[in-house]
Amino acid sequence: MKTAIFPGSFDPITNGHLDLIKRASKIFDQLIVVVGENTHKSGMFTANERKQLIQDNIKNLSNVKVTVENELTVDFLHRIHANIIVRGLRNNNDFQYEKDIAQMNSALDHKIETIFMLARPQFEFISSSLLKEIVFFNGDVHKYLPQNVISKMKQKYKRSNE
Amino acid sequence: MKTAIFPGSFDPITNGHLDLIKRASKIFDQLIVVVGENTHKSGMFTANERKQLIQDNIKNLSNVKVTVENELTVDFLHRIHANIIVRGLRNNNDFQYEKDIAQMNSALDHKIETIFMLARPQFEFISSSLLKEIVFFNGDVHKYLPQNVISKMKQKYKRSNE
Amino acid sequence: MKTAIFPGSFDPITNGHLDLIKRASKIFDQLIVVVGENTHKSGMFTANERKQLIQDNIKNLSNVKVTVENELTVDFLHRIHANIIVRGLRNNNDFQYEKDIAQMNSALDHKIETIFMLARPQFEFISSSLLKEIVFFNGDVHKYLPQNVISKMKQKYKRSNE
Amino acid sequence: MKTAIFPGSFDPITNGHLDLIKRASKIFDQLIVVVGENTHKSGMFTANERKQLIQDNIKNLSNVKVTVENELTVDFLHRIHANIIVRGLRNNNDFQYEKDIAQMNSALDHKIETIFMLARPQFEFISSSLLKEIVFFNGDVHKYLPQNVISKMKQKYKRSNE
Amino acid sequence: MKTAIFPGSFDPITNGHLDLIKRASKIFDQLIVVVGENTHKSGMFTANERKQLIQDNIKNLSNVKVTVENELTVDFLHRIHANIIVRGLRNNNDFQYEKDIAQMNSALDHKIETIFMLARPQFEFISSSLLKEIVFFNGDVHKYLPQNVISKMKQKYKRSNE
Amino acid sequence: MKTAIFPGSFDPITNGHLDLIKRASKIFDQLIVVVGENTHKSGMFTANERKQLIQDNIKNLSNVKVTVENELTVDFLHRIHANIIVRGLRNNNDFQYEKDIAQMNSALDHKIETIFMLARPQFEFISSSLLKEIVFFNGDVHKYLPQNVISKMKQKYKRSNE
Repeated sequence: MKTAIFPGSFDPITNGHLDLIKRASKIFDQLIVVVGENTHKSGMFTANERKQLIQDNIKNLSNVKVTVENELTVDFLHRIHANIIVRGLRNNNDFQYEKDIAQMNSALDHKIETIFMLARPQFEFISSSLLKEIVFFNGDVHKYLPQNVISKMKQKYKRSNE
Repeated sequence: MKTAIFPGSFDPITNGHLDLIKRASKIFDQLIVVVGENTHKSGMFTANERKQLIQDNIKNLSNVKVTVENELTVDFLHRIHANIIVRGLRNNNDFQYEKDIAQMNSALDHKIETIFMLARPQFEFISSSLLKEIVFFNGDVHKYLPQNVISKMKQKYKRSNE
Repeated sequence: MKTAIFPGSFDPITNGHLDLIKRASKIFDQLIVVVGENTHKSGMFTANERKQLIQDNIKNLSNVKVTVENELTVDFLHRIHANIIVRGLRNNNDFQYEKDIAQMNSALDHKIETIFMLARPQFEFISSSLLKEIVFFNGDVHKYLPQNVISKMKQKYKRSNE
Repeated sequence: MKTAIFPGSFDPITNGHLDLIKRASKIFDQLIVVVGENTHKSGMFTANERKQLIQDNIKNLSNVKVTVENELTVDFLHRIHANIIVRGLRNNNDFQYEKDIAQMNSALDHKIETIFMLARPQFEFISSSLLKEIVFFNGDVHKYLPQNVISKMKQKYKRSNE
Repeated sequence: MKTAIFPGSFDPITNGHLDLIKRASKIFDQLIVVVGENTHKSGMFTANERKQLIQDNIKNLSNVKVTVENELTVDFLHRIHANIIVRGLRNNNDFQYEKDIAQMNSALDHKIETIFMLARPQFEFISSSLLKEIVFFNGDVHKYLPQNVISKMKQKYKRSNE
Repeated sequence: MKTAIFPGSFDPITNGHLDLIKRASKIFDQLIVVVGENTHKSGMFTANERKQLIQDNIKNLSNVKVTVENELTVDFLHRIHANIIVRGLRNNNDFQYEKDIAQMNSALDHKIETIFMLARPQFEFISSSLLKEIVFFNGDVHKYLPQNVISKMKQKYKRSNE
């Protein structure tokens, strides 16, 4: 059985991420979405909120689960006896950034493989940070964010305005 | 009558920006330079200071005006019944960054067009942030920044040293 | 009146090119599609065939016309008293290539401006050469090529197989 | 059972390709290396020679086989009831090139997935064409090409010198 | 006698930096490693700590010395009557970033030359910031960081956890 | 004494090349411009013509000489007991291409160092091939090509038209 992990910060999850999760879940027997705690910068949502927002959107994918982790990806993979990392690529910038991390993971353990999948053209230009900006100004992003994420974001912005 | 907008943070305006403004003002009937408020990070100058620094340098361009806005570019365009955004490109990094924003603006409203113009070779390597660093260390940048900007920057640095 | 030219080899024209032509025709008062003779490499279609294939697809665009030229773009612009070149950009590679040519045209005459527009996401990955390959192997490309082009290409391939 | 294909021209196969084949053969249940006929440009080796050079190097990989094909990748995948393409990436240039082809294959059939794996750092700068050049000048490339390939290349160059 | 400088933040120095220093020390008669104070962002180590960590690793390189400076590179070069800057390049992102700074230094004084050397493949994917992250999570990076740096980093992290 | 070589096809030499030669000649004690024979593609000028066109333009640079070679760069360096290669970089594309060759040369002999210098902004967008195209159409390129090259090119084009 092939298990792959899909690590990321998912602050918050977008339809681009969800499309990748669906596609990767058809290639591997099991897919674990790994929400990074990110100890360095404070995001919009806590790791647990981010996990919850994902969970609500993958209920119909029986071989996908979500977890929050706060350790090296390599250590997490060892712990679950898996060795495949899935990452999405949108453009050259993503590629350059991901390449360094993938080569480092491979240097830490040569058995670890990073597998890249392309974002579909309609999701190629979106990112969590660009979408946060647009929701902040009340732009319509229902094509790019799941409904539960949009609601939660609007609540956050409301609260911070009060 | 074709109206185009040239949005940016302009913190502060450089001779590279001014060259683009002059060139774009010859292509379109009216050009509106839009200074973004930028609610997330605090710049060197306030939006109004940035607007003023631009205004002093475009007096001889009769079809150009400056304004400060704090909304989605798409919403601003709707309000003034225009649909053309002008942006400058210096290099591949700019291109990658601008492409995402332009595709997002087009996704928000398919009638909105982003038009890119190249920085001239002599301005290709300058940016507001690099120039701020050099002025901080008293480097000579009179080829790259208008005189009023240099004076204002030196005042800022002086004050913060006192 | 602002006249812009859209030069290229168009061997053959794609729906990506046609989308750009339609969008550019709304920004400028007149748009002239300029088919380059390309003296160095022999294409699939002659310059006149390429012109004809374009003409059939722009009949409803009253301010667009096509012409075949065999001279420097700068000289052609001088002859028609225009100074704006429109070019499409799909990705970083296009950008790098186009930037050199645009800077050279600007060096030959500083009044000449090259204006870049982005291919829409659904046309970002297509090119005349990739499509020729797919039509050769009978792949379905009706979303990416106008009908008259597909027919003409199939004729060409048939003849070269006889 | 997950079957993936690894298409390419392999003119000739390098140790970089072989490393990818070995790594991909551990991720998928079956891997089919597909040598493209390439009707347009004449290579150093015929498709059958290229196939043979690969075969000699994958004998110990029980779930890998090689085949020569001359059709659209999408059609080949349909015929063998598979939908996964594996491709290697060395750098930004590769990425840009591969992205267009992968998006086109996805456009021809949305179920087709292209999976990218990184070349290891020590193979990142090699390519069949660069190695051909070096062998031509008798440079030592035994780290980058399998022994049978080097021998066959030297024979070719000898013959063309006679 | 040719003197070159190798400026950087070195927060902290990596084996990638040290490899470049060794190689550059063979090309130039004297090499001065210049640790930038970086007044804007607070790093992991103070400039003097960073200098010390370098010094311990270059004892056997008789023509290399380290210094801490807090001025424009151009001004430092004038002061020591030198005009060559050495910088390492790992990838396209580095290139783009370094190019702007090099062109600016050349604009400030046309006699200043920036000389680029490539990171070796095994050091191409490492950076001070990526390594800091991995040491934080107790990953093994002894191939990428000198021993004194690893010890000092672990002390820092320990102290900040207490 | 530090000897460096500056290899290339120089078909023909441009003012961009000459600027690099002048700058490199100030960094190294001796600079040898190495004209590659290029056995694979036929250029505009023969290797000897290319050498002559360079020679006429470097007469006042006492520590620079030109030679034609037809062997691996590494072998040439061994023969003259040198180990430094100088190459110019204009943009990301150059960088990607040059990086592979430099890493390969380093793999063939770890003592060989490739040193990169940037083209000045005013020469960043020119290349021998782009300039050939413009001279073909009688464009004015006296800023980018030495006078002897322009004359020789015009003769070539004249002859091929007769």
